[in-house]
Amino acid sequence: MRASGRQPDQLRPVTITRDYTRHAEGSVLVEFGDTRVLCTASVEAGVPRWLKGKGEGWITAEYGMLPRATHTRNGREASRGKQGGRTLEIQRLIGRSLRAMIDLKKLGENTITIDCDVLQADGGTRTAAITGSAVALVDALTWMLNQKMIKNDPLTGLVAAISVGIVKGEPLLDLEYTEDSACDTDMNVVMTQHGGIIEIQGTAEGKPFSREETAALLDLAEKGVRELVAAQQQALNW
Amino acid sequence: MRASGRQPDQLRPVTITRDYTRHAEGSVLVEFGDTRVLCTASVEAGVPRWLKGKGEGWITAEYGMLPRATHTRNGREASRGKQGGRTLEIQRLIGRSLRAMIDLKKLGENTITIDCDVLQADGGTRTAAITGSAVALVDALTWMLNQKMIKNDPLTGLVAAISVGIVKGEPLLDLEYTEDSACDTDMNVVMTQHGGIIEIQGTAEGKPFSREETAALLDLAEKGVRELVAAQQQALNW
Amino acid sequence: MRASGRQPDQLRPVTITRDYTRHAEGSVLVEFGDTRVLCTASVEAGVPRWLKGKGEGWITAEYGMLPRATHTRNGREASRGKQGGRTLEIQRLIGRSLRAMIDLKKLGENTITIDCDVLQADGGTRTAAITGSAVALVDALTWMLNQKMIKNDPLTGLVAAISVGIVKGEPLLDLEYTEDSACDTDMNVVMTQHGGIIEIQGTAEGKPFSREETAALLDLAEKGVRELVAAQQQALNW
Amino acid sequence: MRASGRQPDQLRPVTITRDYTRHAEGSVLVEFGDTRVLCTASVEAGVPRWLKGKGEGWITAEYGMLPRATHTRNGREASRGKQGGRTLEIQRLIGRSLRAMIDLKKLGENTITIDCDVLQADGGTRTAAITGSAVALVDALTWMLNQKMIKNDPLTGLVAAISVGIVKGEPLLDLEYTEDSACDTDMNVVMTQHGGIIEIQGTAEGKPFSREETAALLDLAEKGVRELVAAQQQALNW
Amino acid sequence: MRASGRQPDQLRPVTITRDYTRHAEGSVLVEFGDTRVLCTASVEAGVPRWLKGKGEGWITAEYGMLPRATHTRNGREASRGKQGGRTLEIQRLIGRSLRAMIDLKKLGENTITIDCDVLQADGGTRTAAITGSAVALVDALTWMLNQKMIKNDPLTGLVAAISVGIVKGEPLLDLEYTEDSACDTDMNVVMTQHGGIIEIQGTAEGKPFSREETAALLDLAEKGVRELVAAQQQALNW
Amino acid sequence: MRASGRQPDQLRPVTITRDYTRHAEGSVLVEFGDTRVLCTASVEAGVPRWLKGKGEGWITAEYGMLPRATHTRNGREASRGKQGGRTLEIQRLIGRSLRAMIDLKKLGENTITIDCDVLQADGGTRTAAITGSAVALVDALTWMLNQKMIKNDPLTGLVAAISVGIVKGEPLLDLEYTEDSACDTDMNVVMTQHGGIIEIQGTAEGKPFSREETAALLDLAEKGVRELVAAQQQALNW
Repeated sequence: MRASGRQPDQLRPVTITRDYTRHAEGSVLVEFGDTRVLCTASVEAGVPRWLKGKGEGWITAEYGMLPRATHTRNGREASRGKQGGRTLEIQRLIGRSLRAMIDLKKLGENTITIDCDVLQADGGTRTAAITGSAVALVDALTWMLNQKMIKNDPLTGLVAAISVGIVKGEPLLDLEYTEDSACDTDMNVVMTQHGGIIEIQGTAEGKPFSREETAALLDLAEKGVRELVAAQQQALNW
Repeated sequence: MRASGRQPDQLRPVTITRDYTRHAEGSVLVEFGDTRVLCTASVEAGVPRWLKGKGEGWITAEYGMLPRATHTRNGREASRGKQGGRTLEIQRLIGRSLRAMIDLKKLGENTITIDCDVLQADGGTRTAAITGSAVALVDALTWMLNQKMIKNDPLTGLVAAISVGIVKGEPLLDLEYTEDSACDTDMNVVMTQHGGIIEIQGTAEGKPFSREETAALLDLAEKGVRELVAAQQQALNW
Repeated sequence: MRASGRQPDQLRPVTITRDYTRHAEGSVLVEFGDTRVLCTASVEAGVPRWLKGKGEGWITAEYGMLPRATHTRNGREASRGKQGGRTLEIQRLIGRSLRAMIDLKKLGENTITIDCDVLQADGGTRTAAITGSAVALVDALTWMLNQKMIKNDPLTGLVAAISVGIVKGEPLLDLEYTEDSACDTDMNVVMTQHGGIIEIQGTAEGKPFSREETAALLDLAEKGVRELVAAQQQALNW
Repeated sequence: MRASGRQPDQLRPVTITRDYTRHAEGSVLVEFGDTRVLCTASVEAGVPRWLKGKGEGWITAEYGMLPRATHTRNGREASRGKQGGRTLEIQRLIGRSLRAMIDLKKLGENTITIDCDVLQADGGTRTAAITGSAVALVDALTWMLNQKMIKNDPLTGLVAAISVGIVKGEPLLDLEYTEDSACDTDMNVVMTQHGGIIEIQGTAEGKPFSREETAALLDLAEKGVRELVAAQQQALNW
Repeated sequence: MRASGRQPDQLRPVTITRDYTRHAEGSVLVEFGDTRVLCTASVEAGVPRWLKGKGEGWITAEYGMLPRATHTRNGREASRGKQGGRTLEIQRLIGRSLRAMIDLKKLGENTITIDCDVLQADGGTRTAAITGSAVALVDALTWMLNQKMIKNDPLTGLVAAISVGIVKGEPLLDLEYTEDSACDTDMNVVMTQHGGIIEIQGTAEGKPFSREETAALLDLAEKGVRELVAAQQQALNW
Repeated sequence: MRASGRQPDQLRPVTITRDYTRHAEGSVLVEFGDTRVLCTASVEAGVPRWLKGKGEGWITAEYGMLPRATHTRNGREASRGKQGGRTLEIQRLIGRSLRAMIDLKKLGENTITIDCDVLQADGGTRTAAITGSAVALVDALTWMLNQKMIKNDPLTGLVAAISVGIVKGEPLLDLEYTEDSACDTDMNVVMTQHGGIIEIQGTAEGKPFSREETAALLDLAEKGVRELVAAQQQALNW
């Protein structure tokens, strides 16, 4: 039994609140238990210089943690003058994952910037960020269709992400902070609503893991993503 | 009559929510109408190098806006690699204002860092930040007393802050964004709960202002601060 | 009696030397007692990107202190790799103050950059910088008129600035360094030659100040600015 | 048949040259076909501040590409003033992978810094870097044993890494640049000499991939790593 | 007799290997004894903004040392976030020296960027870099002529560079690291193949040097450069 | 005849004003014609970390140009966030030159920082900076002796510096800006008061120069330095 009373294959309570702030074209507060991430999608006409003239759009993401989202305060990246390696790694992952939801040709020469800001952290911030941003992105596309910035919906389907890991020899779904700190293997999996894999990032924190453990973790991840996609669809009233 | 239906000397609805996030020693969400700022107070033993050995503590503040807190997206300061002049100016003001609430000798060689992060902006973010942070700071001091990090309460009283301005010739209290953009004169005033002035920053955006207008603005500010202090006291159950 | 033998409402000796260096379109050395600031105004055709095509000009300012302008050496901002918060705050103030002297429409799409470099500091560097730069700006406008870069004089009047403060309970005009370090309240006031207020920045360094003290300080500031404007006019042979 | 004439499960020719430069405690030039990476291991007494007093050592890695290692010149990160996200991501991966080879307790309070500099790039630079650095690390440990900086060998076994991917529907081992650019799925796998998995990073560049494809890619990777470990052992004369 | 057994006027063995890497238009590994520098020349159409429209080309250079090219590891400039003064000084020298080989008019509006990366250092890295880059530059010009990017060869002749110095009162040619560290005077001389001087940089590290010593050092440098030019010509099969 | 009416071997009028500002231990305004540089010497107890415990002192220098010291405004290095290559090169030269005046052992573990700030530029700023700083350094040493921070005078003699160059085939002493821009060869020479050479930096801007021209330039430099040393001695009342 896990500290939180969850079963090994059980997600934390998931809440997806749309229109959480009012200026962004898509704005979602996503909660995986005590992890809370504000995801906004901002639409701008035009694309980065290297994409100009190709008739395609672009989706990019930035990630940040408020300094006191965590147990002890982390220095503010803006005042330190640069984003750390972990931040860059996560925002590159979010961007790649969301681009997999979209036909960039149909987006036209427009850019959507996703901002994921962690208000409170308890493990799984990157997977919550992807899951919440997917909904914010859908809202931004709807806004573009309503504004007639685009004619055809570029959406090819939802994506969601979840962490899995091996703690004391047992594969667990959706690690919270205390589990994440104690795990031997930590894996983040991004999948489409149709079950295709977008990204696997698995790391042995302690001892190496086996092919069998890999399979068990991916089984758990598939179950988790199915449930997350259901939560996204419910939030979107689909 | 103002666009929002307010009287010239009327504040927007003020909400102060304590314990908004769970890790910080003080955590307050403050709302002045649609302006929403998350203020956390983080306690750390020790002081900056230049203060060591003097037996005094330190209060410092950092301020940030989420990129899409505003109507159009602003570049993230962490990815641009530096904090802008406006940010530095505001966080210096917040720090000075909060230090005026505290007897630093009684704080001992401890540091409290205030983080003010704007989730949604509609004018008056710096005054909301000071007003909310004052409550977060009180909670952090209570935590320190409970933890026996300090023996005597360093609090000397509350501070609160409000903006006032002259729009189309009329002095108004608590400017929202559309008023702030259109004003001739913009003034931020920080005061103690006893009516003493901590800071006045008044700027002619359009034409110069007079001594009489200065007095009218300070009258409005006094009224606003009295009401904000009442809201702080209610939130603190005093 | 003040350390320098001055009356409470007495300025330090003010010297304004035009054409102090030879390349800039306006170049003024301003001295408030031992405070010496070199203010240059540089004219360039064109405006920043965000102003292009609006038919308006721009005035901006930068401020710096030579490392040994002060009692002990301060690190050079260029070698530390960024300008500090105090520097940014001051140069923003100088820019706002000087823009209040000018009809930016009449300036056409031209930019004037003001550089204020403190050669020697003894309190009041920002107010000296504004007062001296106003004269350098007039010289630059005259140069533009002579060069036929502009047809009509954009000048709407002079501005000048002075510090006032409360030291041991007494309101004083034009604080020098030792007074500035010891004061309870410090206020910088920028006014037009016609007595309109452009900016008030008042800060309680020690205990809060009252409405009555605010009025007394503004009375002193008005007197000081009147005398500074007279010094500017004399330097300009008006 | 692949452009290079290789079979789908065939590595490029692998060369591991020890003592490639003379100052470092370990210095290896590793070549995977036309990809050439210089890997040095530098030993220093002491550990980073956050590890002090714990009786453990540290392994860290830095990665860089010479500006013209690639088809077109990339700006030098030193002159741009920061390392890009891709660089940080890769050097974090290298560090994690090499720490999995070592019992940090047995390393004592010493630090080994791995530098991986790509002299020529043709796909797979990060996997070549890990494979070559593992050998440089062994040489550095031998040096430490000889110098009597440590008593017991901290080595727990070799690690090696290889890329696999799906190109036009076919799983391939050890992608070269033209294959990497055209692939649908790209996966980097780090394993120990005993077949345990240290890291899996798989990304869908085009369409999502399936569980079956994941298994086929991991099969290829296992074969590749076995051969790389053999090459490492041969280079080490084991 | 020198530690290496060389005569005072004897160069270390010089090796110039062309086509050392395969992507650059010119790629040379130059070795002066144990000093090894990889020099690449990269051709790009277009010139920096300040040169546009003048019908001239540009040659620029960047210099770097791999962190463990030296006896003890130096921090990587990319991760420190800036190039040091020594690096900037050297790359400015390399650029100036190579521009002296070229008629920039004949280069058309094209840019050649020289990258000099020190793989192993044993004194004289800047002079080796200039000598090797000169050959890489010739190869890049040949490539441009073959590609018909330019019609006429912009080459006006070769340049080469050598260090000379006074160690224990004796003038020596081509200092290696141990001599460089012990010398009283250190001089780098860049000359054309026709014996004209492009640059002299002589520094007294210990005691001042005389006009006679200057002459003796320049005599040695002339001899060294003659031999280096012969090595360049041989490498180029001239 | 030169534009300024000077003979080829004639210096511009040289003025050395001591005690130009009041806080620094040494403060000199040096003028070479229209070139004006403020040189201050700041004494601090202690040495940089890498020198600690060796019983030696340190002399270091920083150089800056006010943005409008030149014909057209240059961006302020502090706001650009880094010092340019030219700045770093010059301040390294100034530091090396001044260290040649001093027995660092006798300085004890103290640091003197020289700041050279160009108020107005007309060619030769680095040579004026060295010449003026030498006098400021003497004043700082005298201050240290008076304060009994040191017992024995560390001064070993004065240094001075001058530029020479070849303009239209003619060797000239002390180039002013228009000559500097037009010259074929530009050389800066630093010498001791006893005629020893500290530094030679000669660069062919146009065509290469010969050994004979080198000798002619050094003859001119010797004459110039002799006269500068006389001016230093007169300023010091020696």
